[in-house]
Amino acid sequence: MVVIMEMGATEPQIEAVIENLNARGFDVHRSSGVNQTVLGAIGVKPEFDPRIIRVLDGVADVQRVTEAYKFASRSWKKEPSVYDINGIAVGGNEFILMAGPCSVENEEQIYATAAHVAAHGASFLRGGAFKPRTSPYSFQGLGEEGLKLLRAAADRHGLNVITEVTEVGRVDLVHQYTDIFQVGARNMQNFDLLKELGRSDKPVFLKRGLSATINEWLMAAEYVLSQGNLRVILCERGIRTFETATRNTFDLSAVPVVKKKSHLPIFADPSHATGIRDKVIPMARAAVAAGADGIIVEVHPEPDAALSDGPQSLFFDQFEKLARQIHDIAGAIGRTMKQPTYA
Amino acid sequence: MVVIMEMGATEPQIEAVIENLNARGFDVHRSSGVNQTVLGAIGVKPEFDPRIIRVLDGVADVQRVTEAYKFASRSWKKEPSVYDINGIAVGGNEFILMAGPCSVENEEQIYATAAHVAAHGASFLRGGAFKPRTSPYSFQGLGEEGLKLLRAAADRHGLNVITEVTEVGRVDLVHQYTDIFQVGARNMQNFDLLKELGRSDKPVFLKRGLSATINEWLMAAEYVLSQGNLRVILCERGIRTFETATRNTFDLSAVPVVKKKSHLPIFADPSHATGIRDKVIPMARAAVAAGADGIIVEVHPEPDAALSDGPQSLFFDQFEKLARQIHDIAGAIGRTMKQPTYA
Amino acid sequence: MVVIMEMGATEPQIEAVIENLNARGFDVHRSSGVNQTVLGAIGVKPEFDPRIIRVLDGVADVQRVTEAYKFASRSWKKEPSVYDINGIAVGGNEFILMAGPCSVENEEQIYATAAHVAAHGASFLRGGAFKPRTSPYSFQGLGEEGLKLLRAAADRHGLNVITEVTEVGRVDLVHQYTDIFQVGARNMQNFDLLKELGRSDKPVFLKRGLSATINEWLMAAEYVLSQGNLRVILCERGIRTFETATRNTFDLSAVPVVKKKSHLPIFADPSHATGIRDKVIPMARAAVAAGADGIIVEVHPEPDAALSDGPQSLFFDQFEKLARQIHDIAGAIGRTMKQPTYA
Amino acid sequence: MVVIMEMGATEPQIEAVIENLNARGFDVHRSSGVNQTVLGAIGVKPEFDPRIIRVLDGVADVQRVTEAYKFASRSWKKEPSVYDINGIAVGGNEFILMAGPCSVENEEQIYATAAHVAAHGASFLRGGAFKPRTSPYSFQGLGEEGLKLLRAAADRHGLNVITEVTEVGRVDLVHQYTDIFQVGARNMQNFDLLKELGRSDKPVFLKRGLSATINEWLMAAEYVLSQGNLRVILCERGIRTFETATRNTFDLSAVPVVKKKSHLPIFADPSHATGIRDKVIPMARAAVAAGADGIIVEVHPEPDAALSDGPQSLFFDQFEKLARQIHDIAGAIGRTMKQPTYA
Repeated sequence: MVVIMEMGATEPQIEAVIENLNARGFDVHRSSGVNQTVLGAIGVKPEFDPRIIRVLDGVADVQRVTEAYKFASRSWKKEPSVYDINGIAVGGNEFILMAGPCSVENEEQIYATAAHVAAHGASFLRGGAFKPRTSPYSFQGLGEEGLKLLRAAADRHGLNVITEVTEVGRVDLVHQYTDIFQVGARNMQNFDLLKELGRSDKPVFLKRGLSATINEWLMAAEYVLSQGNLRVILCERGIRTFETATRNTFDLSAVPVVKKKSHLPIFADPSHATGIRDKVIPMARAAVAAGADGIIVEVHPEPDAALSDGPQSLFFDQFEKLARQIHDIAGAIGRTMKQPTYA
Repeated sequence: MVVIMEMGATEPQIEAVIENLNARGFDVHRSSGVNQTVLGAIGVKPEFDPRIIRVLDGVADVQRVTEAYKFASRSWKKEPSVYDINGIAVGGNEFILMAGPCSVENEEQIYATAAHVAAHGASFLRGGAFKPRTSPYSFQGLGEEGLKLLRAAADRHGLNVITEVTEVGRVDLVHQYTDIFQVGARNMQNFDLLKELGRSDKPVFLKRGLSATINEWLMAAEYVLSQGNLRVILCERGIRTFETATRNTFDLSAVPVVKKKSHLPIFADPSHATGIRDKVIPMARAAVAAGADGIIVEVHPEPDAALSDGPQSLFFDQFEKLARQIHDIAGAIGRTMKQPTYA
Repeated sequence: MVVIMEMGATEPQIEAVIENLNARGFDVHRSSGVNQTVLGAIGVKPEFDPRIIRVLDGVADVQRVTEAYKFASRSWKKEPSVYDINGIAVGGNEFILMAGPCSVENEEQIYATAAHVAAHGASFLRGGAFKPRTSPYSFQGLGEEGLKLLRAAADRHGLNVITEVTEVGRVDLVHQYTDIFQVGARNMQNFDLLKELGRSDKPVFLKRGLSATINEWLMAAEYVLSQGNLRVILCERGIRTFETATRNTFDLSAVPVVKKKSHLPIFADPSHATGIRDKVIPMARAAVAAGADGIIVEVHPEPDAALSDGPQSLFFDQFEKLARQIHDIAGAIGRTMKQPTYA
Repeated sequence: MVVIMEMGATEPQIEAVIENLNARGFDVHRSSGVNQTVLGAIGVKPEFDPRIIRVLDGVADVQRVTEAYKFASRSWKKEPSVYDINGIAVGGNEFILMAGPCSVENEEQIYATAAHVAAHGASFLRGGAFKPRTSPYSFQGLGEEGLKLLRAAADRHGLNVITEVTEVGRVDLVHQYTDIFQVGARNMQNFDLLKELGRSDKPVFLKRGLSATINEWLMAAEYVLSQGNLRVILCERGIRTFETATRNTFDLSAVPVVKKKSHLPIFADPSHATGIRDKVIPMARAAVAAGADGIIVEVHPEPDAALSDGPQSLFFDQFEKLARQIHDIAGAIGRTMKQPTYA
């Protein structure tokens, strides 16, 4: 931690800060220039709140030196993490496609979708059974029945399952059906849930919160990692900004930023990021080009009749065309992808 | 819902949109101008996702006409809601002061704080026992022991209790000790929790999420209200913006905006909004002047030694001075406040 | 314009709004449902301020129906605009590369850069001579001497010139040297400058303001277009959000959004959007994949010694590699690009 | 400047950074802990771009130690600045009220407004003659005729004049009529204009840009101050955020933040910050309570007929009531204000 004293800070003020830091267990290096004094506070305390020093008299600013997270950082693990999930390598050179409807609605819908996405390059089937919805009057999901359908449809077509869990009390239930736990944007800082998942043996797919900085997102990952579950996958899905032309603002730069700070795989979700079908396709292509390890995208046999998020779900033929384009873009930057079927 | 067709929309496109709306149960009023056609879709479906129509060919835009919430709106209840909480009228002409430490730390700390704030105008004692913290390595609260201390300290000094609940599984426990359930900003859209609290008999103090629009906040209140618990108190506590000089940006304009849209009482939390002690005082005064029904503010006997949020906690003498200033400002705009003791 | 009355609006309130609209020259269609009345106000007044009606008693909301811009819209011109700039088609199927240093610094620097970018796929040479800098103490550009060097270097290597103009009083001077006028993000709403450029015979490259919505950006384009200069090129260069890991947040979704609303060509500037060299490369690739018509990117022979924006300028070898990757990505989505030289 | 090396930075990387800093004229203090090395770079170069070091190998982060501005800082001038403007002390203990219409429209309008605001506590008359408008089709102001009317109306009623200048070429003209130059939010970083005003003998009222951080705002002030004009007044007028219920988000916390960082007086503009009349009143009161040195507020004899910004302009009786409330709130926090007339 570096403490920057004000230009006119007095000697007693400087000494009081040093004493305060010592009392809290820090060693202090003092460096006094012509105009200003800077104090280096040494001692690894990632949880220390720098505002404690910032409010002292004569202090101009305090800067954290070490990242507040440990297990999520590149310092802790230099090489990118690659997870073997039932034979699929997530985080490696292969670009991974996860696809499926927003919500599982019925048997016909989920089986048709599973068949289609499996044929066109997807390795994972997505689908919600417990839906967090902005309005209490909206469709809230099929519950366990939805989980059963999702698992069966995935198994039939050789896919893995990813589905959302929203509540500590439901972790065991969802665990019976899924291969990856998805944590939604609204729950990114549901710390009780994160701790519970940190004690699980299945990977966690952690979406970025709407207003979360990249550092806070990595801190949320740290909640899972610090409990012993070392398989976290991050997913950028749009942040909230002043622009309303899209549902959220797709912060695709997060991909190279995360790649530098962390060893964790990073995915992108162009469906939630943009919220409108005809923007999903270009932004899915952009995600591949930006270096994401995979995308998760919403597809529905009849988007116009979907019970949730229909407007951002792709039609089958759109998904098919997209899969081929991203396959080619992946190739242009030296990555592989499961070959989509060419009709 | 109003559907605005593009300038060059064709007759078949317009007819397709009308048919689609009819099929979804809407009556349609068509209004064709020289340049453009506008369709009024009539039928009360607050949960309808307007994007379903927006993605159709020839549609330029779709605007919701009715608010998506019902019980939270002024249309449903014209008069401001006033709740009697153990003899304290919340939402009435009396300005209400809630105060206490961020976390309950020990008996001495919470008793001293209770005594001080009770003497200087507060009606409610705040204090956290289960703390949601950004870092897994930070102090996470005393748990049930904290709730017991909080209740006892409040009882000793004739105060009511407000404390946070973060998890469905803990609602019953917290219910035993608190007078008001506080829902933190990070849980504003924890819908499982909101539904559970909607079935409770105690009021819910719902803080605004960091990136929540006022409409989404009222929708979150609707989750509680629609389950039958009609006593929700809103609390503005800062939103996330590009400005980093303060912890968050205190959106104080939310006070008059909410007052117009809703009958629910609205409070403000200048401590979390600004995050730095010397900004808390002017912004607390501003909240009164802006018309808030009360504030919740952090106070600690020794802020420098606090286990959480010390830098934004007021010293006792600061709280005392602040209480007098807000008492006078309340008077200047025609409101009353519990008389602070003048030493 | 659509006026949505409150649920409980009285008949006199509704009539007062209708009279008010009539007095302002609007025809009104009234549509009364069971719960609510909606008024359609007809009459093309793109400049009308909807807040005038919103503040009337009984009005819940007012929605604009027509876009406030005319010449910038797809309604006015269905086909994408393609400009022939000295034989280069901007806005067509060919992906356009503009490159060069942030500032023109000296003859050696600008000639070396021109030679390099010309050999690797660029059609335009960029470089600033009058630099708007956040600090008054920073390098402010070479002025006219910079313009001369830029023009000569471009001519020597068969490139066109794009450079920024910041001030009405300098339009004539810059006109002598440039092929395209660049308007920077900070001047996006410098309306005096936009009007002056609207009377010019050279194209205008209009960067998006840091906090401009896409609608405001198109309104700024309208200032130029409405004066008679029909050749505007838009450029997304990042918006300001809460995230500080990158200099700005690259809102790449603006590309498909603008493509749908407007016929104007749209470029992207990954250098200013991200502000850090190693993020420029993936985001430049993403811009191609998202469908931008071109990019403008900063390149410098010695980024470490650059007088401005060195940290976001590419080294020559990085530019060379990037040019090849974007050439291949352009191919993957069916676009052409000037062939970079393969060493 | 403090350079924080990565946890695993190698000795050659550390030495390369030190050499680089030395070559740029910095002295370097090295401080190596168990896990990490921190370098203090000493030498006052406020304009140095820290990203130059941040992109070097092995560097984790770089933090600026000194503020980039000098004359705007409290370090340079400890006491709050107070300007005598024709006998009115701006920045002192007296709370200052500036009021008038958005645009000067005609003689009757501006004289009536001047008479009213002079009688109710205002010291300055505001009014625009050259209006920057989002749409090219909106009323653009009366030009010099507007300036003449404004001056004459102010003189008649013993008021001073504040009016906006948007263009370098118009500084001399506006100088003939005004007492304070207003620089609008859109021109906060129009550096050519700021430099020109920095050479003037009249004070500059600098509104905060919609997306400007407080530091950038102070840097914009520095452009004026560094040219020799030491009389700058800052004005908070709302920033752009995701919330659309108000025109902008009134960042009132900027008042105490600026008071701590700078000696410059700070005003607030609740009219532009909220954009809707019934929100202007509570937020004007809040500004006083938060410690602003004054406010600037829009008033119009017939807001419904105003040529610009009518919806955010107060009616005469509203202004009168507001003036009394802010007079009383000023008193509650120990400030004076010119006595409004009580009818």
